[in-house]
Amino acid sequence: MNDFMQVAIDEAREGMNHNHGGPFGAVIVKDGEIIAKSHNRVLHTHDPTAHAEIGAIRQASSILENFDLSDCEIYTTSQPCPMCLAAIYWARIKKIYFGTDKDEVAEIGFDDSHFYELIKKDTEELSNLFVKVDWEKCLELLNEWNSKTDKQMY
Amino acid sequence: MNDFMQVAIDEAREGMNHNHGGPFGAVIVKDGEIIAKSHNRVLHTHDPTAHAEIGAIRQASSILENFDLSDCEIYTTSQPCPMCLAAIYWARIKKIYFGTDKDEVAEIGFDDSHFYELIKKDTEELSNLFVKVDWEKCLELLNEWNSKTDKQMY
Repeated sequence: MNDFMQVAIDEAREGMNHNHGGPFGAVIVKDGEIIAKSHNRVLHTHDPTAHAEIGAIRQASSILENFDLSDCEIYTTSQPCPMCLAAIYWARIKKIYFGTDKDEVAEIGFDDSHFYELIKKDTEELSNLFVKVDWEKCLELLNEWNSKTDKQMY
Repeated sequence: MNDFMQVAIDEAREGMNHNHGGPFGAVIVKDGEIIAKSHNRVLHTHDPTAHAEIGAIRQASSILENFDLSDCEIYTTSQPCPMCLAAIYWARIKKIYFGTDKDEVAEIGFDDSHFYELIKKDTEELSNLFVKVDWEKCLELLNEWNSKTDKQMY
């Protein structure tokens, strides 16, 4: 089997055995070497964002001192949830190796598939969740950014 | 205007003026009190996940020592990107007050809208990005979790 995925699986199993969180592990590879690895730590840290992929991305970015991981690949034991997939997009990672998919993850009780469905909806369709306030004041912020001469796009 | 949104805007402006990242701020409110606030720190920390909402959620979870923020509300100057929206779902937050929307954020050069479109696609449609490997070994992990007698669902 794939050596990098084996490390991701070992990470997942370690986290699961320590009751850190769900059975999920991820590693980030650059130039054929693992530079970061993580497992789900939601229960251990109380942080709902402490998924394996987020942990690995944060670690890799810290090591490389760069938010742009476009020269990296990620190996993750399960298809990333929408939070982790969008984090992968923001990190500009171009290749995701994964094992089980979101429907298989749903079968053991996690909400990934459900959240994928919710995320397809517009804010208007989710009127119980979303409330628009102070639009003009918030738009001023965007305009301030736009006219800022020393801004760095990313 | 809304007092909580004013604090979120102040946060955003502080971050923008210090070149910490884009013009985005968020606060988390519990029982009518602000318990966490954050702004985008992607450039400052090199962490591509350091969006305002993620920062505020991590702070609130740490303070409450609970990944479940279902008794909290979030105020954010712009509609959350898919990463932050999924993080809000994982944190079980039930109400999102926001100002500008993803299309207005796109107009000043950020990829939120683009990522919303990508996230609607299946892994099969994104064959340049996704590669399935070692499915059986990864499925074993999920089954191990499923048969674990001391697992805590979340």
